[in-house]
Amino acid sequence: MTMNTIGEIFRLTTYGESHGAAVGGILDGFPAGVEIDVNFIQAELDRRRPGQSAITTARAEGDKVEILSGVYEGVSTGTPIAFEVRNENQHSSDYEEMKNLYRPSHADYTYQTKYGIRDHRGGGRSSARETISRVVGGAFAKLALKHFGIQIYAYTSQAGDIKLDSDYTKYDLNKIESNIVRCPDAEKAEQMIELIKSVKAEGDTIGGVITCVIKGVPVGLGDPAFGKLHARLGAAILSINACKGFEYGMGFEGVGGRGSQMNDRFANIDGKIRTTTNHSGGIQGGISNGEDIYFRAAFKPIPTLLFEQNTVDKAGNDAIIKARGRHDPCVLPRAVPIVEAMSAMVILDALLANRSAKL
Amino acid sequence: MTMNTIGEIFRLTTYGESHGAAVGGILDGFPAGVEIDVNFIQAELDRRRPGQSAITTARAEGDKVEILSGVYEGVSTGTPIAFEVRNENQHSSDYEEMKNLYRPSHADYTYQTKYGIRDHRGGGRSSARETISRVVGGAFAKLALKHFGIQIYAYTSQAGDIKLDSDYTKYDLNKIESNIVRCPDAEKAEQMIELIKSVKAEGDTIGGVITCVIKGVPVGLGDPAFGKLHARLGAAILSINACKGFEYGMGFEGVGGRGSQMNDRFANIDGKIRTTTNHSGGIQGGISNGEDIYFRAAFKPIPTLLFEQNTVDKAGNDAIIKARGRHDPCVLPRAVPIVEAMSAMVILDALLANRSAKL
Amino acid sequence: MTMNTIGEIFRLTTYGESHGAAVGGILDGFPAGVEIDVNFIQAELDRRRPGQSAITTARAEGDKVEILSGVYEGVSTGTPIAFEVRNENQHSSDYEEMKNLYRPSHADYTYQTKYGIRDHRGGGRSSARETISRVVGGAFAKLALKHFGIQIYAYTSQAGDIKLDSDYTKYDLNKIESNIVRCPDAEKAEQMIELIKSVKAEGDTIGGVITCVIKGVPVGLGDPAFGKLHARLGAAILSINACKGFEYGMGFEGVGGRGSQMNDRFANIDGKIRTTTNHSGGIQGGISNGEDIYFRAAFKPIPTLLFEQNTVDKAGNDAIIKARGRHDPCVLPRAVPIVEAMSAMVILDALLANRSAKL
Amino acid sequence: MTMNTIGEIFRLTTYGESHGAAVGGILDGFPAGVEIDVNFIQAELDRRRPGQSAITTARAEGDKVEILSGVYEGVSTGTPIAFEVRNENQHSSDYEEMKNLYRPSHADYTYQTKYGIRDHRGGGRSSARETISRVVGGAFAKLALKHFGIQIYAYTSQAGDIKLDSDYTKYDLNKIESNIVRCPDAEKAEQMIELIKSVKAEGDTIGGVITCVIKGVPVGLGDPAFGKLHARLGAAILSINACKGFEYGMGFEGVGGRGSQMNDRFANIDGKIRTTTNHSGGIQGGISNGEDIYFRAAFKPIPTLLFEQNTVDKAGNDAIIKARGRHDPCVLPRAVPIVEAMSAMVILDALLANRSAKL
Repeated sequence: MTMNTIGEIFRLTTYGESHGAAVGGILDGFPAGVEIDVNFIQAELDRRRPGQSAITTARAEGDKVEILSGVYEGVSTGTPIAFEVRNENQHSSDYEEMKNLYRPSHADYTYQTKYGIRDHRGGGRSSARETISRVVGGAFAKLALKHFGIQIYAYTSQAGDIKLDSDYTKYDLNKIESNIVRCPDAEKAEQMIELIKSVKAEGDTIGGVITCVIKGVPVGLGDPAFGKLHARLGAAILSINACKGFEYGMGFEGVGGRGSQMNDRFANIDGKIRTTTNHSGGIQGGISNGEDIYFRAAFKPIPTLLFEQNTVDKAGNDAIIKARGRHDPCVLPRAVPIVEAMSAMVILDALLANRSAKL
Repeated sequence: MTMNTIGEIFRLTTYGESHGAAVGGILDGFPAGVEIDVNFIQAELDRRRPGQSAITTARAEGDKVEILSGVYEGVSTGTPIAFEVRNENQHSSDYEEMKNLYRPSHADYTYQTKYGIRDHRGGGRSSARETISRVVGGAFAKLALKHFGIQIYAYTSQAGDIKLDSDYTKYDLNKIESNIVRCPDAEKAEQMIELIKSVKAEGDTIGGVITCVIKGVPVGLGDPAFGKLHARLGAAILSINACKGFEYGMGFEGVGGRGSQMNDRFANIDGKIRTTTNHSGGIQGGISNGEDIYFRAAFKPIPTLLFEQNTVDKAGNDAIIKARGRHDPCVLPRAVPIVEAMSAMVILDALLANRSAKL
Repeated sequence: MTMNTIGEIFRLTTYGESHGAAVGGILDGFPAGVEIDVNFIQAELDRRRPGQSAITTARAEGDKVEILSGVYEGVSTGTPIAFEVRNENQHSSDYEEMKNLYRPSHADYTYQTKYGIRDHRGGGRSSARETISRVVGGAFAKLALKHFGIQIYAYTSQAGDIKLDSDYTKYDLNKIESNIVRCPDAEKAEQMIELIKSVKAEGDTIGGVITCVIKGVPVGLGDPAFGKLHARLGAAILSINACKGFEYGMGFEGVGGRGSQMNDRFANIDGKIRTTTNHSGGIQGGISNGEDIYFRAAFKPIPTLLFEQNTVDKAGNDAIIKARGRHDPCVLPRAVPIVEAMSAMVILDALLANRSAKL
Repeated sequence: MTMNTIGEIFRLTTYGESHGAAVGGILDGFPAGVEIDVNFIQAELDRRRPGQSAITTARAEGDKVEILSGVYEGVSTGTPIAFEVRNENQHSSDYEEMKNLYRPSHADYTYQTKYGIRDHRGGGRSSARETISRVVGGAFAKLALKHFGIQIYAYTSQAGDIKLDSDYTKYDLNKIESNIVRCPDAEKAEQMIELIKSVKAEGDTIGGVITCVIKGVPVGLGDPAFGKLHARLGAAILSINACKGFEYGMGFEGVGGRGSQMNDRFANIDGKIRTTTNHSGGIQGGISNGEDIYFRAAFKPIPTLLFEQNTVDKAGNDAIIKARGRHDPCVLPRAVPIVEAMSAMVILDALLANRSAKL
């Protein structure tokens, strides 16, 4: 959670600006002996790629990942895994006039003030291209988690004002990838797609909510006090561009209820200690209890609008700004694999850390 | 965020079980030269103390803090500051029958499974007594932040189904401490208090929401990528016992809007670059922009109920459990100073880190 | 290695000034399920205690350790273990005149300049009393290492100009504790004791070398690149007060030889892959190879002399200083348990980290 | 010091195997606003390059560094700086027979056992090519340190049995680069070169010692307890391939003296508080005192010999091994820039950390 590194034992460190030479990262602490399916990693990356459908940005970035170290004859060796995606299709000139202007609700002003300098082209380091490294890191983590039977499903549960039921168990999570908005409810998905198209036509944007479900997590992951599993998940998810909120289990909605309604009673189910409900979201006292972990993440409407907005320039003078780049009208469909990726990395890290809990 | 330590440069490491000898912690990286007002620290601790009012637990814990190092002649020396609060008034026998039972929605089962052993008395390490150390750490942080003109206000904005308006600017934050529920709206406060009393009479519990506002933060705190300021705040707040969600700025509610509505335009106000609205919650691209930082945190109804619940014992056999200890019907009033404390520590840490951003 | 914390998974954070209320620390990441023999821990502490023999300082500090958390019914619970030793027998007035004077080769001047303030009494944080926490932390680590058959032996191999042979295999390591200088060669020990006594009579001091041997370490501890096992050991040992050098295996002496002489050939010995010599010191490429780990640490003559020395005061004026406290003429005998303690903590940390090396 | 990352605020994370696609790293926490002279960085890299002279390996690696991020229009931006050097001129077939053999005093056996897999080609991750990333990281650090007037000089002070005087003040440090062995004494340099040539002709190798002097360090860098400046330097230097020992100030040699001889008295020299001698090596109590910092590092004869040695294969069977690659007869000349690089990174990190010491 420090600067550009996340994780304690399994760690991802990332780099890269939108219009620089490349984006990429280094995975350290990835265990040896995991078979690395490069096609799977590239497929994960393709899930976040711009230009993948009619409701994403038209930028057609290829985004091919190259693995530079840490994998030998298709198996991880325990040494750091570096990877990179060279930047292409950069229209830096689209951003020339933004060199001295601060785009509303972007990071231009804060970066410029913090560092006294910024690479303004395409948002520089604050660009969503930074999430490429997260998806690659998450893909590696998923390959390791597969060995432990852990599976992660994220989906768009709200786009603009179109919402799914908050109970994920009502949906077939295997249907998420059957539509371009990544929503397991086919009917709502169609409505969301229509909404996004109409918003796009207006040059405006909408936000929404992503729900994530993690199945197969063993009992015991996460630490007391500050290293609680949901605190780690929350930090990871909140660090994704445009994320404004994180809630797990009963979340904000459930806090209005009574303890007697919300408590999860234990029962012996098929010889296992289980809970009969799961308002806890699979985590009790910061430690996984073996039930499904689930959480929701809020994403704001991205701030790049295709019409004029008032702003100021670096000197503080009034100015007008109008984006000309190619942008997403709604970040949700492409954020789904990013949410999964961050979750995968947190779970793998917690799983490795838990190996030291006992003598 | 690792195990029992939080922070990168300014760090708090905590210890202590509910019925052990003491709870306490070590503050490392606290800057030299800060005047340490021990009365202020104790007063902060008194704000979280059990038994402080008719709507908190009847346990009358004294909770006197002792500072063991790092302060000389009333000024911090730059060396680690250790502090402790000895545990008293422990009714360990209240918990004897819980040695082999798992309390619903508590951490008993997860601790036992993770570690193979637990101190069951009073919840052991998972007890809310652990938050004593957070409040003390936060009090030190507040003393340092005072030098930079940074102020933190948290308040109960929802208890059960009684809610305040989500716009904090409608309230006088100086009135928060004028009632026992710590709510700046006197009328709603009264309603909340009545609700909590009635819930307590039933042996049940309720949750709610705490809103926190941080004023005076300079532009530039927080890092790109994983160390975003709101990700650090989120991790810190989510690590508080019973917290189920965190949102900042427009939060979950705002994601249904359009970008054109939610963007914060820049303007030159009195010679300063400011935003005309603050949907961003004082943070853009993970870095503070000089506007008020504000966020909301969800707290579940605490799971200790004063009537019988079904559960299982360690062997997985069906059992009945009924709490006999003295417990809070609603965690919110006492959680207010904890939310402030965690925020203060995160902000101080980010402020110190920012000293290295530029040459 | 950051400020007052050492370790990655198993971590010790310490606090305390010489004449403050207490010295102590928090152990985090100590595995659950280790039987905690408090008598053993106290006995280790007694090995570093002042006043234990005719060749140490006459200060008769009791130094009783109290464990405050993390141990329940004699077994570690996996939660942080806090411990403290209250300071007693403080003659702060011995130090009054040193408030404004900088003792030669002490940390007075550097602390004062770094922090702008210091607790000058008894050396404050830079006092060797800080090593109490290290010995306690190391004693816990030894209790865990016992389960893995790992044993650590340190001894005084040089005091002033009296030296043992550099080959530790020539000595019976079980004889180390048979004399007050902690030297396995009885004859040399006698000479060392005589030398220390005569130096003490002069009010002067001497330094020396401690050799440490670690037996039973499995193959595989330590990491490539920066986390090499000997780099971690080196950092830990060099962080002990008065330590001026660290060498392992062939060390400085061996670098004058040829590769053909110094290489350790592999051989199959009793069905195990072993090396026929051990110039590598049990570590190859930063990773333990299963042979004995051994290293040497240089300790300077401590700078507190019982006669007048030239110095300056805080304002930079010439001054004369003469220590009046009670001090050790030679730090070596009491440093032996500290070297063992630091080694034990590094090895336990590396052992836990290695659990994540493979899938 | 964790795995493949070094540093707390300014951090280098490295990756890369000898015969993989590339070696490189990410620098995080490098301050914004530093002018980046790419030619200087490449020149530093050229100082460690194989094939640079008659006494280094004949491998003629080009080793051109590419900077991928974090630098915009020639100035650092505060965001992570990634860099890479593509591997070329790999004779992997030279290593084919070593796939199943363990080279004596190399890391083959320990890596294989730790991870269950290794990239054997050219030593894989344990190859000295890993130090490329260190030199690049150090070059960046030097560019930042220049702004503070801090200069670092390392030189070969011993090769085999040819030694310089241990007092570095006897030499003109500007003459270091005037010969291929990087020794400021022209006569001794000539002898060293002759020795290395003759050793090379035998197919054997020699080790030696590098002395390093750091000038211009302000008072106050380094932390009490575990983060002592010399402990950080020691860990950094000991982590360099083939390093067997580290000593600073009086080192091992000085511990035989008396305190009365070794103490550094303070005096007011030209209005500044200085010490009249410097046995402390510029560090007192772990904190820099403004005097020159100096230390010595021992490097073993590298273990790759061009004649037959006994060893075992992976199955534990007796075998004969003979290196056929192109190797250095003496690591010292090329290790000089690596020692400087590690020192530069530690000093910059400590300098940034010190900005938080006081309010």
